[in-house]
Amino acid sequence: MSHAEPGELIEQDQQTDGDSSRPVTISYIAEEAGVSVPTVSKVINGRSGVSAETRSRVQALIAQYGYRKSSAVPRSNMMELVVDELAHMWGVEILRGVQRVVRDHRVGLVLTEFGPEHSTIRYWIDDTLARRPACVVSVARLSESERNQLRARGIPFVVLDPASELPDDVPFVGATNWTGGRSAARHLTELGHRDIAVISGPGHLFCQARLDGYRSAMQAAGLPADRVVPAGLTQEDGHRAAMTLLNRPDRPTAVVTGNDLQALGVYQAARSLGLRIPEDLSVVGFDDLPIAAMVDPPLTTVRQPLTEMAAAATELALALGRGEATAQLGIELATTLTVRASTAPPPGVPQDFL
Amino acid sequence: MSHAEPGELIEQDQQTDGDSSRPVTISYIAEEAGVSVPTVSKVINGRSGVSAETRSRVQALIAQYGYRKSSAVPRSNMMELVVDELAHMWGVEILRGVQRVVRDHRVGLVLTEFGPEHSTIRYWIDDTLARRPACVVSVARLSESERNQLRARGIPFVVLDPASELPDDVPFVGATNWTGGRSAARHLTELGHRDIAVISGPGHLFCQARLDGYRSAMQAAGLPADRVVPAGLTQEDGHRAAMTLLNRPDRPTAVVTGNDLQALGVYQAARSLGLRIPEDLSVVGFDDLPIAAMVDPPLTTVRQPLTEMAAAATELALALGRGEATAQLGIELATTLTVRASTAPPPGVPQDFL
Repeated sequence: MSHAEPGELIEQDQQTDGDSSRPVTISYIAEEAGVSVPTVSKVINGRSGVSAETRSRVQALIAQYGYRKSSAVPRSNMMELVVDELAHMWGVEILRGVQRVVRDHRVGLVLTEFGPEHSTIRYWIDDTLARRPACVVSVARLSESERNQLRARGIPFVVLDPASELPDDVPFVGATNWTGGRSAARHLTELGHRDIAVISGPGHLFCQARLDGYRSAMQAAGLPADRVVPAGLTQEDGHRAAMTLLNRPDRPTAVVTGNDLQALGVYQAARSLGLRIPEDLSVVGFDDLPIAAMVDPPLTTVRQPLTEMAAAATELALALGRGEATAQLGIELATTLTVRASTAPPPGVPQDFL
Repeated sequence: MSHAEPGELIEQDQQTDGDSSRPVTISYIAEEAGVSVPTVSKVINGRSGVSAETRSRVQALIAQYGYRKSSAVPRSNMMELVVDELAHMWGVEILRGVQRVVRDHRVGLVLTEFGPEHSTIRYWIDDTLARRPACVVSVARLSESERNQLRARGIPFVVLDPASELPDDVPFVGATNWTGGRSAARHLTELGHRDIAVISGPGHLFCQARLDGYRSAMQAAGLPADRVVPAGLTQEDGHRAAMTLLNRPDRPTAVVTGNDLQALGVYQAARSLGLRIPEDLSVVGFDDLPIAAMVDPPLTTVRQPLTEMAAAATELALALGRGEATAQLGIELATTLTVRASTAPPPGVPQDFL
């Protein structure tokens, strides 16, 4: 149990370098072809930005070494899952999806959480490289340096639920956040709401997509979409934002939120102001965490299929780890609107208005 | 990435058997001492059931090999966490505690979930042995056969939150479930309740301890403690049980439950019957999951320190993995009553009655 062990594994790899059994990695192909690692990656992944001549040279080398690659690279029968922080509500959704797939493939799962102070960030890439995993799934992000180090060792990776924009050649699995936001706001406009406020998430890519979806549906209904309060993604953040929206005479009749926890904060604010949901105020969440069905009234929300997303990301990463060509490197799984009891026509609008 | 790899690792171990660098495991000590592995384990753990003569012979061998043991056993810098099923609500609490400790020690964590069909059970012990972890933490249970196989390989283990009774020599970390149950019911008797019903969990050891704690406090207050409805641990189970208790003229004025999810089921039942919480009915949960503070009204519940329990189990397992003697092999961490807004004096009892 010493930290020398990972070092020894690296040495073993290096010792085989001059050998006929040298593992064929992307970096080896790159060296043989006289091109960069990202270029080989582009060819493998069928991406643009490579000249026809280079592509055919690289493809020839891959064809030549391809078969040996998957059997010769000395990988462990494990994969790595890396998460920023195991959030109370969605952490288990993701882990269940990953576990389902690693069970099917009988692959061991190494789980790394960066934790609140991100104390693991300094060493995780070194330890991950030393463990020689079959592949890596990272929730939300992987820095360019981390991606390059993984590529150099021939360890494929997939970003699950990307929080920021990624280069075209980075495999990812996300959700249709824009479409989900659009369907949430359209549900409210179809109920007759004209005064809809938005509590938006922080700068994450998925929050931006949700917000644009909300706006798109409101604009399609001829509504202004100018009441947007940015907030963090916790219940407290949602509560604070809702108090600024609801504690005034021209309060909205409906609120769409960045996620379910914010929506629960809106519930709190409404209760403290004596507003009934859905009679006085309609509320829509996003995620459809298990808690959404448990609260009173049960929350209308956009279901993000986190478990299925995690399973798809794991399947994709394992397929890349086996050296398989995959048809598609980036996918978004569909969100669906789950209508429960927190939404109704606005006050004063009779049911037959609809 | 073939299943041959774990086999190769085992072979390597076997090849060192005749060697002077042979790893000194509990089974080696047992062989040298001419006793069984459980006997050596008892001596190491300072448990009874070993003759003085045998104990001193084993201790002499441990003293002789002790120092070499921790450095010579070829273990990976990883530990294993095994869970039956990653439950929505408490899975993350446990994982956070484990992650906090493995971060501190820079140990990799391999996570295995048996899953809904327990499909992993057949192979997990083989794969775990082949991975040569520093130690194992298992949530809820480890069979006798699994414990013996781990002992034979010198891999220490700790059972977290035991679901059934364990032999004295099995290290564990639990919670003071009996005391927690007692404080929950005493809170209600002190509020003036005389008609308290119990929704109890299934046969798990911790549910039995909670139930006995409830009964103890009620009997101490001179109350009968005979309204006990057994149920599963989900919200639906709690809802069903609550309907049988509340939908009758002699309904209780308070309900204590086996866990927070059952308590949410009681909320549902009360609402459907037009009963207000806490004015008409007081409800107490158990666990203090994050959801307990989010629901309306916020739930009075017994906090089970799941994160701290998981951290303590991980620290204990890692210490055993380093070959350290530990003062205590079985501990229960204290539960604490968290009073929120779901409990009040019973209807008709004026506040100054207290």
